Amino acid sequence: MFRARAEDFRTAGRRSYARSAGALRAPAVRGKSMQKIRIHTKSRPGIVYCGEGAFEQGYEETLAGKELFVVTDSNVARLYADLIEKYFGSAHVCVVPAGEKNKNHKTLFSILDEMVRARCHRKTVLVAFGGGVVGDVGGFAASLYMRGTRLVQIPTTLLAQVDSSVGGKTAIDYRGYKNIVGSFYQPEQVLCDPRFLTTLPKREIRCGLGEIVKTAALDAEIFDILQGATDFGLRFLEKLVPLCVRFKAGVVERDERETAGLRQCLNLGHTTAHALELDYGRRSHGEYVLVGTAFETKIALAEGVCKREYAERILKIVSRALPKMPRFPDIGSAAENALLDKKNSGQEKISLVVPKARGEYAEISLPLPTYAEYLKKIEGGLL
Amino acid sequence: MFRARAEDFRTAGRRSYARSAGALRAPAVRGKSMQKIRIHTKSRPGIVYCGEGAFEQGYEETLAGKELFVVTDSNVARLYADLIEKYFGSAHVCVVPAGEKNKNHKTLFSILDEMVRARCHRKTVLVAFGGGVVGDVGGFAASLYMRGTRLVQIPTTLLAQVDSSVGGKTAIDYRGYKNIVGSFYQPEQVLCDPRFLTTLPKREIRCGLGEIVKTAALDAEIFDILQGATDFGLRFLEKLVPLCVRFKAGVVERDERETAGLRQCLNLGHTTAHALELDYGRRSHGEYVLVGTAFETKIALAEGVCKREYAERILKIVSRALPKMPRFPDIGSAAENALLDKKNSGQEKISLVVPKARGEYAEISLPLPTYAEYLKKIEGGLL
Ligand SMILES: NC(=O)c1ccc[n+]([C@@H]2O[C@H](COP(=O)([O-])OP(=O)(O)OC[C@H]3O[C@@H](n4cnc5c(N)ncnc54)[C@H](O)[C@@H]3O)[C@@H](O)[C@H]2O)c1
Ligand SMILES: NC(=O)c1ccc[n+]([C@@H]2O[C@H](COP(=O)([O-])OP(=O)(O)OC[C@H]3O[C@@H](n4cnc5c(N)ncnc54)[C@H](O)[C@@H]3O)[C@@H](O)[C@H]2O)c1
Ligand SMILES: [Zn+2]
Ligand SMILES: [Zn+2]
Repeated sequence: MFRARAEDFRTAGRRSYARSAGALRAPAVRGKSMQKIRIHTKSRPGIVYCGEGAFEQGYEETLAGKELFVVTDSNVARLYADLIEKYFGSAHVCVVPAGEKNKNHKTLFSILDEMVRARCHRKTVLVAFGGGVVGDVGGFAASLYMRGTRLVQIPTTLLAQVDSSVGGKTAIDYRGYKNIVGSFYQPEQVLCDPRFLTTLPKREIRCGLGEIVKTAALDAEIFDILQGATDFGLRFLEKLVPLCVRFKAGVVERDERETAGLRQCLNLGHTTAHALELDYGRRSHGEYVLVGTAFETKIALAEGVCKREYAERILKIVSRALPKMPRFPDIGSAAENALLDKKNSGQEKISLVVPKARGEYAEISLPLPTYAEYLKKIEGGLL
Repeated sequence: MFRARAEDFRTAGRRSYARSAGALRAPAVRGKSMQKIRIHTKSRPGIVYCGEGAFEQGYEETLAGKELFVVTDSNVARLYADLIEKYFGSAHVCVVPAGEKNKNHKTLFSILDEMVRARCHRKTVLVAFGGGVVGDVGGFAASLYMRGTRLVQIPTTLLAQVDSSVGGKTAIDYRGYKNIVGSFYQPEQVLCDPRFLTTLPKREIRCGLGEIVKTAALDAEIFDILQGATDFGLRFLEKLVPLCVRFKAGVVERDERETAGLRQCLNLGHTTAHALELDYGRRSHGEYVLVGTAFETKIALAEGVCKREYAERILKIVSRALPKMPRFPDIGSAAENALLDKKNSGQEKISLVVPKARGEYAEISLPLPTYAEYLKKIEGGLL
């Protein structure tokens, strides 16, 4: 029932970035540094293939011969046109427009539409091939179509590899709120191949770095590695991918649906990140996470939750990742956005997950005016 | 953060049916015949309150004092305006237009919109107060908003009480396909109070009867009761509600996500029902289920899967529920719709769950032309 639909690709300029993407067509040194990380959640066991060759090995072991429905975005479709033709030439490929602004219900329903037209069924494997946006909206579509098809994530950004592809959160933004509509839906496999990262613009590397720094503020081992590093080049960051995946997998296994009070630790820095993202919204999510981590570290320090020495180490890591802190005029009013955060369920207080000590975090809760005051002081350089 | 929003009610004609609905305002003889049926699924334990007084007792034990977001439809809001004001006066009440044609993404997103505006959060209890349409789309919204709020079903139709409110399937129709987009999401409580059924039009009683007859074709005890009955009045049917709930609960406990090969038994009669519903679509779902059960019983007989004597008993029960079998001109082309059924995942064959013997069912699979031939013969009175 599936036919090749090569005409679905947007072929404009499809070779423009082919040089670096071509790396993936070189004979893979299979399993060289490839590892499989298993995640056992209540709802479904999953495997993350991590390292060079993850794509080919994962493809062979989990996708070859299956009925596939591939979701990707316009950038990835262009950059990896040859790879898509080679591996997904006989699958239905659905190309959505790239960018966070398209992580919405229009895109979701355009995917569901194509799934209906492609006569997808429950055993169809939806392959989300792209960054966090494709993973979130593609995974969401997989969770909803016939109440759930099979799902494989192939994350192509650093952020998606270290964070969003693992853990089963899917979502769209709605009415200006990030991820307010979504589901929990574990992928069966995640194929994290570092070679996809070679085509990433610098800005997107920094974006992933945001989540890595956040993880460092939660996990002692990753903290030590980041602390010891002098520069955060791609080769260096790649090595952190499996560590971040393992850390997140451990959290998700113990608290898949964020009901046991553990998974929210992954929101460190995020309350402020989301609040700023909502008002200023021109930078990448990861940059706001870096900013949020810095702000919330300073708040933790001021509140006496975090010791000065540790706070300074975290701040140093942040400033290595984001040398120039952006400015946020009128930040006091952005503070209110934090009330809309999922974590702040129906309260008047703002909950923050903040660094406490190496490998330890704390949850603090502040009245809105106090929180707004902090943001203003920090932005003004007074804290 | 929740305020009474009495202006949300459509007050037009709100007293027109108040007489019978008023029964619910009479002091309840609590627990008289009320029973609690527990459902233990992998994802969440649930309780079905069943019998007269279920509404008040369930309200006291599970809803009083909580932040509630009530979803109901225009008919139920009108019929039960007083009850809504009394019990949900301080909650946010979202009234959606009644009818299957509104079980769509527009209604879904209008509910999500109101949830955003009402600043609902994860601990908000979404109360789906109405028939299967409200239950399916309201439950769907509950499963998606912030990836899941709390959910209580208050089914007000016979169909919703015996079937749709229990088991956690939620959905909308899309692009002409029934329930093609949805989720599995178990309610924490279901309040099945027979007094709501007193305001139901006859047609809607027959609708629930469809699922009851289907259940009788699966469960020996219910089969015996239906066989022994001379008329299917409301008082009689009410008594079947807890039996049907128990039967469904047992199935759902063992196969929540329809992956273990058991839950699909609940689709008995439904392949044909859905195929006809898609093409003719003027009658209620339950009537199509009655028709589908009759057609598939005849197919089972012709295929040698079901003995004549038992088939005739099933057909007799169907004809007592639906004395006049509707006509389906050009039924052969409707047969193709069955290919689109979720059960027939990517096959060219049609799967049917058919009666086999008292308390036993069978799954059969027919090539499309054979299935179409059967439908034509049965419609033509040749089988
Ligand atoms: N589900 C989760 O648990 C979770 C966790 C963190 C973040 N997120 C979500 O992830 C999203 C951010 O993810 P993202 O940063 O990957 O965004 P993204 O998917 O928009 O990707 C960023 C940009 O990089 C492009 N791109 C993707 N792969 C590329 C490659 N290999 N080479 C060159 N360009 C490439 C994309 O087209 C896009 O323009 C946000 O919506 C965020 O909410 C989800
Ligand atoms: N989720 C499941 O497992 C499941 C199972 C079976 C059916 N369903 C779905 O259920 C839907 C059918 O349910 P339904 O038959 O309840 O339809 P419905 O919700 O449309 O209700 C039928 C009619 O009765 C009205 N009504 C509701 N309560 C009333 C009352 N107490 N008094 C008078 N009128 C009342 C409604 O406004 C509507 O006009 C279909 O969409 C079907 O797909 C779901
Ligand atoms: Zn993040
Ligand atoms: Zn049904």
